[in-house]
Amino acid sequence: MIKLVLLRHGESEWNRENRFTGWYDVDLSDKGEKESRSAGELLKKEGFVFDIAYTSVLKRAIRTLWNVLDGMDLMWIPVTKDWRLNERHYGALQGLNKAETAQQHGEEQVLVWRRSYDTPPPPLEKTDSRYPGNDPRYASLAENDVPLTECLKDTVSRVLPLWLEEIAPEIKAGKKVIIAAHGNSLRALVKYLDSISDEEIVGLNIPTGVPLVYELDDDLKPLKSYYLGDQDALQKAINAVANQGKA
Amino acid sequence: MIKLVLLRHGESEWNRENRFTGWYDVDLSDKGEKESRSAGELLKKEGFVFDIAYTSVLKRAIRTLWNVLDGMDLMWIPVTKDWRLNERHYGALQGLNKAETAQQHGEEQVLVWRRSYDTPPPPLEKTDSRYPGNDPRYASLAENDVPLTECLKDTVSRVLPLWLEEIAPEIKAGKKVIIAAHGNSLRALVKYLDSISDEEIVGLNIPTGVPLVYELDDDLKPLKSYYLGDQDALQKAINAVANQGKA
Repeated sequence: MIKLVLLRHGESEWNRENRFTGWYDVDLSDKGEKESRSAGELLKKEGFVFDIAYTSVLKRAIRTLWNVLDGMDLMWIPVTKDWRLNERHYGALQGLNKAETAQQHGEEQVLVWRRSYDTPPPPLEKTDSRYPGNDPRYASLAENDVPLTECLKDTVSRVLPLWLEEIAPEIKAGKKVIIAAHGNSLRALVKYLDSISDEEIVGLNIPTGVPLVYELDDDLKPLKSYYLGDQDALQKAINAVANQGKA
Repeated sequence: MIKLVLLRHGESEWNRENRFTGWYDVDLSDKGEKESRSAGELLKKEGFVFDIAYTSVLKRAIRTLWNVLDGMDLMWIPVTKDWRLNERHYGALQGLNKAETAQQHGEEQVLVWRRSYDTPPPPLEKTDSRYPGNDPRYASLAENDVPLTECLKDTVSRVLPLWLEEIAPEIKAGKKVIIAAHGNSLRALVKYLDSISDEEIVGLNIPTGVPLVYELDDDLKPLKSYYLGDQDALQKAINAVANQGKA
């Protein structure tokens, strides 16, 4: 039985402030720190062990992973940090408050930007201080790969090659894997694994800090998937994410 | 100007208890935690930046590195964890108190075990619970590579290939490197870099948590080396290490 664990980072300072975060490298909030520690304890209690881990190059995901590995006494396992697991780039919305943006542009427009599969938010200018092309962590990327904005479809296009070319072969080789990443990079992966349509993926909300377990067959097709932990608390967390875009 | 930074992990729980630690995976003490945070602040203040990092598979070194990268806002850089940077394996002495061992066997014998270049402490049996061969983190090692005990010469023999085949080529390719490791794996590296004799290396003590900077020429020959930070506090730290083996 192959098990894969996906974990969205714990609450960040900007989740808490209800701001579009994207590639901004904000840290976990105190609550997010606790969520990530709890996720590690839960995984340990349930008997999970990992051989390798993947995360983004953003500290809210890296710290979540570090806290989990610390709690599981697995600090020594190899960790690959890859920009392709980053959150969806929110373009010119990055840094803005979600509710204020909804007041200005209407809830419907914000829901399109947040949840449309193929309509990206307004793009950044390359002269914008938020443009990732000047950040050393993206120095090795081709200029074409550095996003000015992204819709979920764009995020899927960069997450999938990492899955197909690097992560899936490791799982097929017998490695037990955890991926600590972001709402939209994990949504991209779940869309692929569960063959979710472009329309339906809009309604899928992944809560922060709750391990999502996939049981896979030998071809890595899902047999079933479930969240670990208290199911009532979980439903509240999912609803909280869904309600962020309301004015 | 090429700069390489070596960092011995902050004080561990077993440094504090004055026990032979070796490959036992003890954590940092509160003091060690603070030392590692200070090292990160110091490196940041002095304008250091790193592209990649190396550490052992032992948590006192990994946590030291994590704390440093956290303080420098470099959590995203690639980190290679390699068993060849582990502390020297202390064989059957692992876990024993250094002063008590000196009372039993004499200070001179303990100094030989601690500081002789080519006399290892008594070996472990493979049936001993301390034998590393049953630990999953060493599962990929050839049985011959799993130590039952080590003298410094043995440690040098495993550290050098890592340096020559992996770390040195990265430095020559322009990467700025930090290595967070252990008293004896760093002593092995310093012996090689500074061409220190087998006899003299016995007297070299590397303090915990103090960044050791090497300035290297294009062939990676040292131009000079120095510890960062307050030089008086530094001398005390060096003396503290030297005095551990006394009854």
